[in-house]
Amino acid sequence: MQLQSKDLLGLEGVTKKEISLILDTAESFREVSERSIKKVPTLRGRTIINFFHEPSTRTRISFEIAAKRLSADGINFSTSGSSFSKGETLVDTVKNLEAMQADVIVMRHGIPGAPHLIARNLDAAVINAGDGAHEHPTQALLDMFTIRRHLGKLDGLTVVIVGDIAFSRVVRSNIYGLTTMGARVIVVGPPTLIPVEISRMGIEVLYNIDEAIPQADIIMILRIQLERQGKVFLPSLREYARLYSLTPERMKIAKKDVLVMHPGPINRGVEIDPRIADGDHSVILEQVSNGVAVRMALLFLLAGRKEFNKSE
Amino acid sequence: MQLQSKDLLGLEGVTKKEISLILDTAESFREVSERSIKKVPTLRGRTIINFFHEPSTRTRISFEIAAKRLSADGINFSTSGSSFSKGETLVDTVKNLEAMQADVIVMRHGIPGAPHLIARNLDAAVINAGDGAHEHPTQALLDMFTIRRHLGKLDGLTVVIVGDIAFSRVVRSNIYGLTTMGARVIVVGPPTLIPVEISRMGIEVLYNIDEAIPQADIIMILRIQLERQGKVFLPSLREYARLYSLTPERMKIAKKDVLVMHPGPINRGVEIDPRIADGDHSVILEQVSNGVAVRMALLFLLAGRKEFNKSE
Amino acid sequence: MQLQSKDLLGLEGVTKKEISLILDTAESFREVSERSIKKVPTLRGRTIINFFHEPSTRTRISFEIAAKRLSADGINFSTSGSSFSKGETLVDTVKNLEAMQADVIVMRHGIPGAPHLIARNLDAAVINAGDGAHEHPTQALLDMFTIRRHLGKLDGLTVVIVGDIAFSRVVRSNIYGLTTMGARVIVVGPPTLIPVEISRMGIEVLYNIDEAIPQADIIMILRIQLERQGKVFLPSLREYARLYSLTPERMKIAKKDVLVMHPGPINRGVEIDPRIADGDHSVILEQVSNGVAVRMALLFLLAGRKEFNKSE
Repeated sequence: MQLQSKDLLGLEGVTKKEISLILDTAESFREVSERSIKKVPTLRGRTIINFFHEPSTRTRISFEIAAKRLSADGINFSTSGSSFSKGETLVDTVKNLEAMQADVIVMRHGIPGAPHLIARNLDAAVINAGDGAHEHPTQALLDMFTIRRHLGKLDGLTVVIVGDIAFSRVVRSNIYGLTTMGARVIVVGPPTLIPVEISRMGIEVLYNIDEAIPQADIIMILRIQLERQGKVFLPSLREYARLYSLTPERMKIAKKDVLVMHPGPINRGVEIDPRIADGDHSVILEQVSNGVAVRMALLFLLAGRKEFNKSE
Repeated sequence: MQLQSKDLLGLEGVTKKEISLILDTAESFREVSERSIKKVPTLRGRTIINFFHEPSTRTRISFEIAAKRLSADGINFSTSGSSFSKGETLVDTVKNLEAMQADVIVMRHGIPGAPHLIARNLDAAVINAGDGAHEHPTQALLDMFTIRRHLGKLDGLTVVIVGDIAFSRVVRSNIYGLTTMGARVIVVGPPTLIPVEISRMGIEVLYNIDEAIPQADIIMILRIQLERQGKVFLPSLREYARLYSLTPERMKIAKKDVLVMHPGPINRGVEIDPRIADGDHSVILEQVSNGVAVRMALLFLLAGRKEFNKSE
Repeated sequence: MQLQSKDLLGLEGVTKKEISLILDTAESFREVSERSIKKVPTLRGRTIINFFHEPSTRTRISFEIAAKRLSADGINFSTSGSSFSKGETLVDTVKNLEAMQADVIVMRHGIPGAPHLIARNLDAAVINAGDGAHEHPTQALLDMFTIRRHLGKLDGLTVVIVGDIAFSRVVRSNIYGLTTMGARVIVVGPPTLIPVEISRMGIEVLYNIDEAIPQADIIMILRIQLERQGKVFLPSLREYARLYSLTPERMKIAKKDVLVMHPGPINRGVEIDPRIADGDHSVILEQVSNGVAVRMALLFLLAGRKEFNKSE
């Protein structure tokens, strides 16, 4: 079995079978990172380009490590200040990369849909590493992978996502993925940070975190973008923290074995109390570890596609 | 046979035999990039440093991919803001790199002659990846490689180069290389962008593109540096495009099997019409592919020199 | 035998036996860089992260080359402008890197003690690549390695260190290391650049370079930070050069086989005369070569610790 698309642009439209394939594949690669020799020859001689048009370290390093552990050749470039931006179109830029026989282009871009635009114009595989406030599918996949490892399944679980629902690509990808896998999603946040279309996605909306917590098998805390503070969306961090921060007090009303997740980077004391971030329920650092495994799985599934198709 | 110099600083003075050697070697490496496992162990354990003192993505990535496909260890650094610029001379900087046993230093620098200066002071091989408006020999070599692949030869062909002749290192290297290989070169552009010394190089100069096109076996369109607009050299882009842009109308007077080339990045609608850039005559993306092969050939020919000499 | 600590944070407290182990190990790796195939499989599949929070090229490239020659997977990141700085604590940042199964984190940071803080919070090994004006242990180790190679020992030698003693991490690490190994250290410089606590470290202080030079087996010239010029510490470069620059005239009073060292980058004509920097006594470029060997030794000794412990 293989993925239907040559690209991973988002989780919208990706089937349950495909998500399961990715998570199962990640399971087999997770073990590689736990050896002392964390390397397999799987993608030797493949070229993977990390094309980051927005600053990112965590996701870029995770993809870079994933590529190296698969023995692929990885190339990094960020376009701020590079010649690629001098009048050249984005499609011309990536067609140049493809002409150098890139197998996979991992793209982060501030503009929603940018990875989709380039994917339509390339034979190379494209992985969306975050496009504006649209999707961040590898983050959602690592979140689902982490849940599945801990709770054995996704189907039937209740995931409460707390925070900046409107501007989060993480939440959008998670909603697509989790609901496809049969989970129930409740989003929680101040009304200004919850877009109206969210309820049309079949998602439950709550404004009071204390109503949501007791229902959660998983509480997923989103990062508050500090730079948004002072805008109409978010009156003050103090106010936000008072109403929505995941604190030890709030954890008292949670299920006993609830998982606490956060895509990082964490604002300690803002959206999450340090005692919870570092506490027994937290799987935040496991999410980071699992990110490498999920990205290895995707690189494996997409980088070799052309040859797999040939041999079929 | 091997190259006479330990360096590739420009195509001025490089013999026909040497250029043929580079192009023949590139031919054998081109195939590597077309495999699914795009990697040979040829330069395992060699250290290649990409030292870019001017922003570049395309050329830097091409060299980086070439090094990786040869299994060499590649190091990138750009000096903007690095400690190397703090009072240290350029020669001291590269002597430090050589002390770390670098085999090849690939250098881009804004000052014409900078690679020559360092080459004189090093035993390591130096490849000029563009020095100011002086030379960009690997670009010219990939251009010649692309022509030879399509037309089987260089000797006797007519190459029309259009655009900013005065400030282009690409054109200078191409003039040296192409004339050495027996091609006829015609340069075309506004008088303000054609330096007087060019005719002394034995090159024909035309100011009217429509006189040149019918003679061309190859039309090489140069990038207009948009940042130069408004200076005396270039009155307006609209005016430039009207007089010199390669359009479908102009292509009607070209030979039937003419090749259209461009070193990139392209300004669509300025120096070249998108229909031509993406059209049947265009080999622009092939140039990019061939760039990797040509750079692999040069790294191979220069990185191993010391040992080859020893064993002779 | 192995190092007592999982980290190398400084040379303060590192024993003579440990320093000897590092230098002996470096000796065996030095030869790797002199082969034509400069690569051993020793750290294949290990992940080494160069985390540079301050600009550096020389040290970063030296570590990067060391990692590649050991076949380790190296990841570079500098935090200026990266998402890691957006509200996330330093400890959270590195815990993320560790969660991706980094074996070694090489850190340069402007704040003294930053590597110590992260080392306490990680199981991964931490190597201090320079923390503010505190320590730069790998520089001191390569200095000692270079001395030992030339003079066969460290014990009983007199090392004269000239320059900005107060703000130099290089000198601090050298004082710890050299005195541990039984060398005698004399520091020389203008009174404003010599801190009072230095004499408490058991170090001799001289303000007149001409009194110190005749006693030296090794003269170690420090870089004058040009940006400090005009501050109270340093009246003028011309004045500094007149009083402290190592010139051919001053070399006349030195021992016949004295070694001249400098950690680089050199300000020619300021702290050292070009004729001395390039002269027969200078081992400045050897220091750079040896830096790779010393860093290979440290990566080897620290990256494999976890497994070595397991198997004991």
